[in-house]
Amino acid sequence: MNQSKKITILKIGIIGLGYWGVNLVRNFANLKDTELKMVVDSRPERKEALDKLCPAAIFSDTADELLNDPEIDAVVIATPVFTHYELAKRSLEMNKHVLIEKPMTSSTKQAEELIEIAQRKKKVLMVDHTFLYTGSVMKMKSLIMNGDIGKVKYFDSTRINLGLFQPDINVLWDLAPHDISILNYLIEERPYSVQATGVSHTHNGIENIAYITVNYESGFIAHFSCSWTSPVKIRMMLIGGEQKMIVFNDVEPTEKIKVYDTGYEYKTDEDKKRILVDYRTGDIYTPKLDMREALALMANDFVSAVRNGTTPLSDHVSGLEVIKILEASQESIKNKGREVIIKNSFQ
Amino acid sequence: MNQSKKITILKIGIIGLGYWGVNLVRNFANLKDTELKMVVDSRPERKEALDKLCPAAIFSDTADELLNDPEIDAVVIATPVFTHYELAKRSLEMNKHVLIEKPMTSSTKQAEELIEIAQRKKKVLMVDHTFLYTGSVMKMKSLIMNGDIGKVKYFDSTRINLGLFQPDINVLWDLAPHDISILNYLIEERPYSVQATGVSHTHNGIENIAYITVNYESGFIAHFSCSWTSPVKIRMMLIGGEQKMIVFNDVEPTEKIKVYDTGYEYKTDEDKKRILVDYRTGDIYTPKLDMREALALMANDFVSAVRNGTTPLSDHVSGLEVIKILEASQESIKNKGREVIIKNSFQ
Amino acid sequence: MNQSKKITILKIGIIGLGYWGVNLVRNFANLKDTELKMVVDSRPERKEALDKLCPAAIFSDTADELLNDPEIDAVVIATPVFTHYELAKRSLEMNKHVLIEKPMTSSTKQAEELIEIAQRKKKVLMVDHTFLYTGSVMKMKSLIMNGDIGKVKYFDSTRINLGLFQPDINVLWDLAPHDISILNYLIEERPYSVQATGVSHTHNGIENIAYITVNYESGFIAHFSCSWTSPVKIRMMLIGGEQKMIVFNDVEPTEKIKVYDTGYEYKTDEDKKRILVDYRTGDIYTPKLDMREALALMANDFVSAVRNGTTPLSDHVSGLEVIKILEASQESIKNKGREVIIKNSFQ
Amino acid sequence: MNQSKKITILKIGIIGLGYWGVNLVRNFANLKDTELKMVVDSRPERKEALDKLCPAAIFSDTADELLNDPEIDAVVIATPVFTHYELAKRSLEMNKHVLIEKPMTSSTKQAEELIEIAQRKKKVLMVDHTFLYTGSVMKMKSLIMNGDIGKVKYFDSTRINLGLFQPDINVLWDLAPHDISILNYLIEERPYSVQATGVSHTHNGIENIAYITVNYESGFIAHFSCSWTSPVKIRMMLIGGEQKMIVFNDVEPTEKIKVYDTGYEYKTDEDKKRILVDYRTGDIYTPKLDMREALALMANDFVSAVRNGTTPLSDHVSGLEVIKILEASQESIKNKGREVIIKNSFQ
Repeated sequence: MNQSKKITILKIGIIGLGYWGVNLVRNFANLKDTELKMVVDSRPERKEALDKLCPAAIFSDTADELLNDPEIDAVVIATPVFTHYELAKRSLEMNKHVLIEKPMTSSTKQAEELIEIAQRKKKVLMVDHTFLYTGSVMKMKSLIMNGDIGKVKYFDSTRINLGLFQPDINVLWDLAPHDISILNYLIEERPYSVQATGVSHTHNGIENIAYITVNYESGFIAHFSCSWTSPVKIRMMLIGGEQKMIVFNDVEPTEKIKVYDTGYEYKTDEDKKRILVDYRTGDIYTPKLDMREALALMANDFVSAVRNGTTPLSDHVSGLEVIKILEASQESIKNKGREVIIKNSFQ
Repeated sequence: MNQSKKITILKIGIIGLGYWGVNLVRNFANLKDTELKMVVDSRPERKEALDKLCPAAIFSDTADELLNDPEIDAVVIATPVFTHYELAKRSLEMNKHVLIEKPMTSSTKQAEELIEIAQRKKKVLMVDHTFLYTGSVMKMKSLIMNGDIGKVKYFDSTRINLGLFQPDINVLWDLAPHDISILNYLIEERPYSVQATGVSHTHNGIENIAYITVNYESGFIAHFSCSWTSPVKIRMMLIGGEQKMIVFNDVEPTEKIKVYDTGYEYKTDEDKKRILVDYRTGDIYTPKLDMREALALMANDFVSAVRNGTTPLSDHVSGLEVIKILEASQESIKNKGREVIIKNSFQ
Repeated sequence: MNQSKKITILKIGIIGLGYWGVNLVRNFANLKDTELKMVVDSRPERKEALDKLCPAAIFSDTADELLNDPEIDAVVIATPVFTHYELAKRSLEMNKHVLIEKPMTSSTKQAEELIEIAQRKKKVLMVDHTFLYTGSVMKMKSLIMNGDIGKVKYFDSTRINLGLFQPDINVLWDLAPHDISILNYLIEERPYSVQATGVSHTHNGIENIAYITVNYESGFIAHFSCSWTSPVKIRMMLIGGEQKMIVFNDVEPTEKIKVYDTGYEYKTDEDKKRILVDYRTGDIYTPKLDMREALALMANDFVSAVRNGTTPLSDHVSGLEVIKILEASQESIKNKGREVIIKNSFQ
Repeated sequence: MNQSKKITILKIGIIGLGYWGVNLVRNFANLKDTELKMVVDSRPERKEALDKLCPAAIFSDTADELLNDPEIDAVVIATPVFTHYELAKRSLEMNKHVLIEKPMTSSTKQAEELIEIAQRKKKVLMVDHTFLYTGSVMKMKSLIMNGDIGKVKYFDSTRINLGLFQPDINVLWDLAPHDISILNYLIEERPYSVQATGVSHTHNGIENIAYITVNYESGFIAHFSCSWTSPVKIRMMLIGGEQKMIVFNDVEPTEKIKVYDTGYEYKTDEDKKRILVDYRTGDIYTPKLDMREALALMANDFVSAVRNGTTPLSDHVSGLEVIKILEASQESIKNKGREVIIKNSFQ
């Protein structure tokens, strides 16, 4: 008998069976060598939904039952943002690995504290930035890494649609984590500062439209436009390199990424007075993308981290760095667009 | 003999025969009851272009010849921005009516001084904000005026493409005047402040990407995104009202304006804790647009102002208000995005 | 006790658990006052799929079990086309109501025989032309019925993509039933003749590209273009009326129907020699569509027909008329495009 | 003195100053080493248009003046189709080279007679199939020639819009020559037969909607859809090869050609009963196209043929082969879609 080959089944619990929780249940229930043992939602009527999705899982309306179950190895937290810190902290302290929905926490301080606990407890702490696992982002990463694009000069993201107004977080905390996590993944340089503006059209002061500019010492610049109140749905990123430019249009069903063989060169004339810009425009290339479900790949990455100690793509550093930009942007909005310096990462 | 019916031919001179000057020559040469008498360009080789376009007009390589010609009633200035003030001032002082290409001047101070001279000299001073004369903008104006859209809440404009880098002005002064003039025309409320960010990828410090947020006391917000370095050409405006929303997509050949019968209502629940947003989505309406050439209508509006004393759509107030936002934005960019208050209009 | 209000549960059986069968199971399992009692597929390994979809249903690998079950009131047939006639005939003879996937049968003769049996047995015989239940088709029907479009002059349909080659039927029998059923539903006039062409790029002679022209005595014309070998997916219909024209673009996610306020009028000049055509172009209207799942509405329509004796939208007449055009087209293709007259409907 | 280097100025006359004639005047007036000596139009009021376009050219309202002018070397015929034969014949007999607008003549017989005269007189006889000189068609030709696409299996063209009804020719003779000339240029195999259908919605019997299928012995198939009565403008060609497929979308401003790395392979299973089709889908490539004006290149090709005896791309063979397909299609329409065999080319 070769015991070393025996795979222990990993037991998973999920807290929160809302819109995204349903997708998590579906994916974790189908994972090899794992068992989705329990799902928690404070609304008892969600039991029915769970019974349809995964009759084998236990339903509970209290997180305590899950946290106190010594068999559960890992917890997936898919509750409103303001509860992330508390639930993740308790999970880690009960020696469970943790996967948190984006955004990781409500503040940098909370995120840093969770990371400290996870390191002390030697547990995986991961954030679900699902977009990093899409074929589109993987393709952009490889185009940038292999030098095809040249030095990257700007990143411009628009994510607007008619969206649900969230009662506890503004449009930035709701929509921008997707794009900021992509930015941080694609670009190695860390941001220097942010400037942000926004407006609330409700009397609770929660912004429904917001804009962020992220500045870098090298001159690279990133800009985000977010809105819950656009009649058209736009999900578009432009990434400009010195050699080529990428357009990522996520509302296209398949032709999501286009690479424009377009660049420009600057020179000054003899008197150093005039800038001459030479454009070069060429072919466009629309690569075939990996169309596997990103959420399944993310779930696998979490399980692999728990089982094999690998570092997931969307780890807690990625989670923290998104929070830093969100927090600084929030501060900038509240200070009428004043530049806010991003604190250095503590690692 | 009924002398009152006799129309005196209006004599026009144009300074600057560049890309846009060619369009001006074509339009003014075709205008009824006017004569394009002289065209000035400092490059003598432009005479050949003029001879093809309008052989009847005199070519000169010096503005003095034009300004000193007592027969010329009105001057159209289509030279680089930094020369506008000087040329317009001299024209007005020679008792000529003046039409200036956008943007009107390099500063608010210059614009105000020109207005003061024009008023003293009782001459027309107009700015060519051509977009105000397009079927698209006229349709949007009427949709807003007749109350169809409801109270307007936001205005979001993107104007990006692979553009010529201008040696003397940045992307804001080059591209944003179009969109700011439209904003000011559509919205009666005057702006309170701006915040702007941007970046220069050349070593002369002239921004090639810039973003402006314009704030209003009522909570209305406007945002502009401008770039000379985008691989795709986007010319899009979103205008959100409480009843309906407008999308103006200027790269569409004919279906430029779409009106979405989409709105949202806010209420709070009993505890005043949660915002409930009700969306209403309905039909989309794509109105037929007046497809006449906007530049011809603008030229007519200038001639009518000179002849009949009417106030043109795109008058010097419109010109000045664009400059105020540009100047404040420039100041904000140089101050790292700090909010800059817009001075009240002097009229 | 009011016994007349008691609703008897209708018991349903489905034969065929392929791609479409899965959708049928999902919809019939969710229907009110019905029970999906049994699902048959000759491949025993499909039991697993059924257990996930609807654990309450019995799986069988033989149709006999279903046909011999006296409790089963109605049978849904979702097997390959060549088996439709045999299975439907046996079902009707066992006194069961029948819903057949499109196309109804392999020949007009078979379809007519089934209709005769259904009428004798007083059973519902319906064909699943799902498209008739979509919001798009319902909207087009009402636009035509209420006279908005004016007299309809032509119908042009393109349905092409990279599709699975069917081993037993050609591209016409696979794709055109959708569009022909829509044509027959929208247009009251019955066709006079067809001409069809096509090509097979495989050595089994089964056409993978085909074109049909359908002629009408009034001068109305319809044309269908079908292909399994197109790199782009096109699902487009143009319907031209004397007052307005409709474009139905089914690959658009929401803006599927556009109504062009465009028409033309013919007149002859005095000599009757020249045709003068006046175009009128106006606004475009994009109606909001009912986005409910068409298949659920179709399933309800079947149940209502069984329970209440109503005539379903997609009844056996609709099914037969599609077969007539397909059969005539097939004959025309085999006769090098020769015109084939459509036989009159027997009812 | 090296007299051999002296270039004689070629003198050109144009007959017909309609919509397309204006473009011809503009292009021939700008050609090097040629002189546009005379332009003829039977409507004397067209003199004004000519004076604006090319004041140096003589206007005449009778073709005789042009044909009798011994100085004129070459004649461009841009009159209604029914006059082509007569004017071209007289020009050739007056020893002038001839360029005719598409379609070449009203019948195969006329085209063959003109070719015979041109050969006897040793004069250039060319047809203006402008599309062959576009960057799009040149790119498609090279993609097919270099084997990238693999064996070509089908060609599907749609050219529909709201078009002017022509009083003398139907929609086929008006629109299809563009697409047929492209087909004949791209595909070396000559067609075997055609089948065509169509309808006239006017009482003069001139078809405003028509469809052609062109058959080839190898199994290659081409299909054309033409309409003057479509609310949307579509100009699309699909070309399917065994290795890749091309989509040419001519309403796109720049991204007109897309090459899909998509193919399919057929095999039969062991029993030879089922066709298995393997699809392969990959990247999409959007090549940069030569954006020079096609009409200028065509004019140059004509002048080069006259001067140097080269064979133009769009020669009389190309012209004749288009007429053959049009004539056979017309015959097929009049015979209710019956297959009409294309006569072999006489050269």
